[in-house]
Amino acid sequence: MCRWLAYSGTPISLDQLLYKPRFSLIDQSMHSRLGVETTNGDGVGVGWYGADDAPALFRGVGPAWGDVNLRELARVTRSGLFLAHIRASTGTPVQQSNCHPFRYGRWLWCHNGAIHGFRELKRDLVLAVDPELYPSISGSTDSEVMFYLALTFGLRDDPVRAVERMAGLVEQTARAHDVPEPLQMTVGTTDGERVWAFRYSSVGKSRTLFYSTELNALRALHPDFALIQGLSEETRLIVSEPLGELEGAWQPVPESSYGVIQKGADELGSFTPR
Amino acid sequence: MCRWLAYSGTPISLDQLLYKPRFSLIDQSMHSRLGVETTNGDGVGVGWYGADDAPALFRGVGPAWGDVNLRELARVTRSGLFLAHIRASTGTPVQQSNCHPFRYGRWLWCHNGAIHGFRELKRDLVLAVDPELYPSISGSTDSEVMFYLALTFGLRDDPVRAVERMAGLVEQTARAHDVPEPLQMTVGTTDGERVWAFRYSSVGKSRTLFYSTELNALRALHPDFALIQGLSEETRLIVSEPLGELEGAWQPVPESSYGVIQKGADELGSFTPR
Amino acid sequence: MCRWLAYSGTPISLDQLLYKPRFSLIDQSMHSRLGVETTNGDGVGVGWYGADDAPALFRGVGPAWGDVNLRELARVTRSGLFLAHIRASTGTPVQQSNCHPFRYGRWLWCHNGAIHGFRELKRDLVLAVDPELYPSISGSTDSEVMFYLALTFGLRDDPVRAVERMAGLVEQTARAHDVPEPLQMTVGTTDGERVWAFRYSSVGKSRTLFYSTELNALRALHPDFALIQGLSEETRLIVSEPLGELEGAWQPVPESSYGVIQKGADELGSFTPR
Amino acid sequence: MCRWLAYSGTPISLDQLLYKPRFSLIDQSMHSRLGVETTNGDGVGVGWYGADDAPALFRGVGPAWGDVNLRELARVTRSGLFLAHIRASTGTPVQQSNCHPFRYGRWLWCHNGAIHGFRELKRDLVLAVDPELYPSISGSTDSEVMFYLALTFGLRDDPVRAVERMAGLVEQTARAHDVPEPLQMTVGTTDGERVWAFRYSSVGKSRTLFYSTELNALRALHPDFALIQGLSEETRLIVSEPLGELEGAWQPVPESSYGVIQKGADELGSFTPR
Repeated sequence: MCRWLAYSGTPISLDQLLYKPRFSLIDQSMHSRLGVETTNGDGVGVGWYGADDAPALFRGVGPAWGDVNLRELARVTRSGLFLAHIRASTGTPVQQSNCHPFRYGRWLWCHNGAIHGFRELKRDLVLAVDPELYPSISGSTDSEVMFYLALTFGLRDDPVRAVERMAGLVEQTARAHDVPEPLQMTVGTTDGERVWAFRYSSVGKSRTLFYSTELNALRALHPDFALIQGLSEETRLIVSEPLGELEGAWQPVPESSYGVIQKGADELGSFTPR
Repeated sequence: MCRWLAYSGTPISLDQLLYKPRFSLIDQSMHSRLGVETTNGDGVGVGWYGADDAPALFRGVGPAWGDVNLRELARVTRSGLFLAHIRASTGTPVQQSNCHPFRYGRWLWCHNGAIHGFRELKRDLVLAVDPELYPSISGSTDSEVMFYLALTFGLRDDPVRAVERMAGLVEQTARAHDVPEPLQMTVGTTDGERVWAFRYSSVGKSRTLFYSTELNALRALHPDFALIQGLSEETRLIVSEPLGELEGAWQPVPESSYGVIQKGADELGSFTPR
Repeated sequence: MCRWLAYSGTPISLDQLLYKPRFSLIDQSMHSRLGVETTNGDGVGVGWYGADDAPALFRGVGPAWGDVNLRELARVTRSGLFLAHIRASTGTPVQQSNCHPFRYGRWLWCHNGAIHGFRELKRDLVLAVDPELYPSISGSTDSEVMFYLALTFGLRDDPVRAVERMAGLVEQTARAHDVPEPLQMTVGTTDGERVWAFRYSSVGKSRTLFYSTELNALRALHPDFALIQGLSEETRLIVSEPLGELEGAWQPVPESSYGVIQKGADELGSFTPR
Repeated sequence: MCRWLAYSGTPISLDQLLYKPRFSLIDQSMHSRLGVETTNGDGVGVGWYGADDAPALFRGVGPAWGDVNLRELARVTRSGLFLAHIRASTGTPVQQSNCHPFRYGRWLWCHNGAIHGFRELKRDLVLAVDPELYPSISGSTDSEVMFYLALTFGLRDDPVRAVERMAGLVEQTARAHDVPEPLQMTVGTTDGERVWAFRYSSVGKSRTLFYSTELNALRALHPDFALIQGLSEETRLIVSEPLGELEGAWQPVPESSYGVIQKGADELGSFTPR
């Protein structure tokens, strides 16, 4: 169980979302309200896009609430697109290479959930990863294997279809091993231009995921709230659980669906493992 | 806010208390039921006595629940007297030198609570430490300063009086700085022979502390419970919050009092800062 | 590049070998004299056998020279059979799951050297691991894959043959990928009764490895040296580079050979990948 | 013993100096050529100035050579003024609060060297720190106490005089405790506008310190070297030991002297403890 957020829009300093709101992501590392576990203290990571082509990564193995370097970094780093994640291990070691987001080229990936029976299924899943991609797997989590499967199935060309095929393979492999209802996931992934978010579970009861209300609607509700006045109309957030306390700020992502944040109209569609 | 336990009696492996009971100390690192904070993830420590003269220390900076080395150590280490502690920082850095127990010669010390206004009071308190002892202070916590003040005031000769004088100095120093109700503490300390436990707060509402019921009474209540059948009559535990689920196993240490676990009759007395 | 030692004989406290000798293993973490790298600061580990069936492990990710917990542990832990290792990463992450020794059941394994071209060869090598064993791989090093290959090939029944088959597979896989001279290794492994040591490299120029002279010969040379007087005749050490400064104490393990330390006569044989 | 560098001039990405040159600072963490110790693996830190008023800090407790977060940060962070430091502990704990640079308001401070007899002298030195500043001391090193003494003696108004008074107090305190030749130091400090560097030791044999040749002279020597063509005339470096391999690039800072890097003419003067 973990928590994550994705931000896309007007460049802001990372601490605006990681630290400053009530119920901020870093608060959730100690006191999550909607998580399966209330504590997410097994590491933290943030990936952000800037001037450079490739996203930058910071990943720490201690609890997010006490990471002094992250606090400094978040204060002085501005970005218009970033993913952040706090980890609650489901059994794999607490180490930097298991912290999200994972990165491959321009892509970042973070995950909340688990593949049940992963110990049994791992070998078959890893075998399905493109041998060219295989050597880049550096940690031991289910989440990273999901990322490399999605890359194998075309994440860079057709992300929705690639994640659907990944989910399909996980479920098919689980059936072969008699593991019922194996997949539980919310996933956020981005190429630095668009952000895709997925909410799905084999059991049909997925971890929570929310996206932010359109900003002009939100401004109409809260004309006095300074932070949101300075943000562009296209600014969007996707979060495991709501930050802050603004009424009307959040919409749940429906079960078995995906969303795309992009220039122009965003997209919301249904998600079906293939 | 922290949690701690002290064990004295028939030698057992450390994991019997740190890991195996329901609501074990390590469980409390993630889910404390009686703590001011529910999470105690800012470090862990255990000090134990064995063949050697000096107690051995293990202290880790990550959350106790994920410390693989501690789990191994607890499995293979047996001791008849040990202190263990899980930390929730009240502001000082998360680092090994701030993890309890603290050690000086044969003495160990652990603390749950805080000196309020410690930033303001620290210089005066540190100045009151015996200059011979001063260089041995290696961390930056209020808890360690309390230990060195107690050592200065004769902990090794008359522990109760020394801790009372320490508490008195803290309160007097706070008055001089207009800091009200400065001290909140449960303290466990031992020389490898006896264990002293203290429960006190300036405000008269101290953190919880419990001691174990005498074993023959407990055996009468639970004749079928294997673990306690093998322990000597003199075996005792002091804990911040009850471990396990045995009815009748725990007695609260009264407000403003101290207890001594020792060969022969234990001792319970009232505690008054001097 | 790494350094390791194996000890078998009269139980001693670990610090007798890890800390006390001149050129001790912990000294070598900062100043190795014979290593390819002079610094071995990417982690440390020790595995030891005691009362318990399974060996205990301590593994730290910081440099051995500064590991305070290891120093404490080594002071109070006595064992008649232990392996210790200091790591210099050849590229894989510095994390606990990559620290040696690796453990499976009663077996421990440590390695100095590398599989060249491991990124390219890894997938094929991992595929050759017994699917039953595969889920227990928890880190990302070549060393751990070598261990699981040896387990796959019968380490628990015929260690020499299993390690020869492992080396053979590595060389055969490398040939298929046009990777020349892939294997460089000294390996120590034990089941808690006997210790096997291997020295081999595809290029025929292996990392150094030494075993200790028989104790009665050594005592004759150094009648005044207290430490060795108290050790049983069967006490043996295997080390990457000599500890201490006793003349005549060390014999090099020959190229392409293996040794077995065991009750009764030790064994030395030639090593040929199969 | 440690190594540090200070950069002032045309904004560059940190990795231009921390990673890219031969004999870069990060290389020196494993292989220092001029240091008293060849290994500086007890932590790393960098402080830099940017848009914000206060400098940002990153400090890691592991060896610099393996710090993945620092590598990322250095790649994407540009600054026109920064200090970086790699640590070799002289006995105080390896922990973040002991990593340089230290920060107070807009000021940064780093140190290579030691106060000999620091355990004995520490109490008297700490007592001399302004009580208003005292609570901001967060670690346990001699280096940080030197910083707070300099702040006490007016670092923010007259840095050279303040550091001279600090050195004078250290030497006077040492005399009172019969500690001979107590101070060994190169110090770099900055307020974000100017950089002061000091080289001094009581024994008159100070650790090495170099400053970069004026850029137009260096360009005349190396017209083909791309990196230096793009830097402003006022760009300067101060380093514990030379980076790179450019002939004529470095001048030693004389014994018992200080230098100031600033807009307009730099300054070099003699240093006398007061």
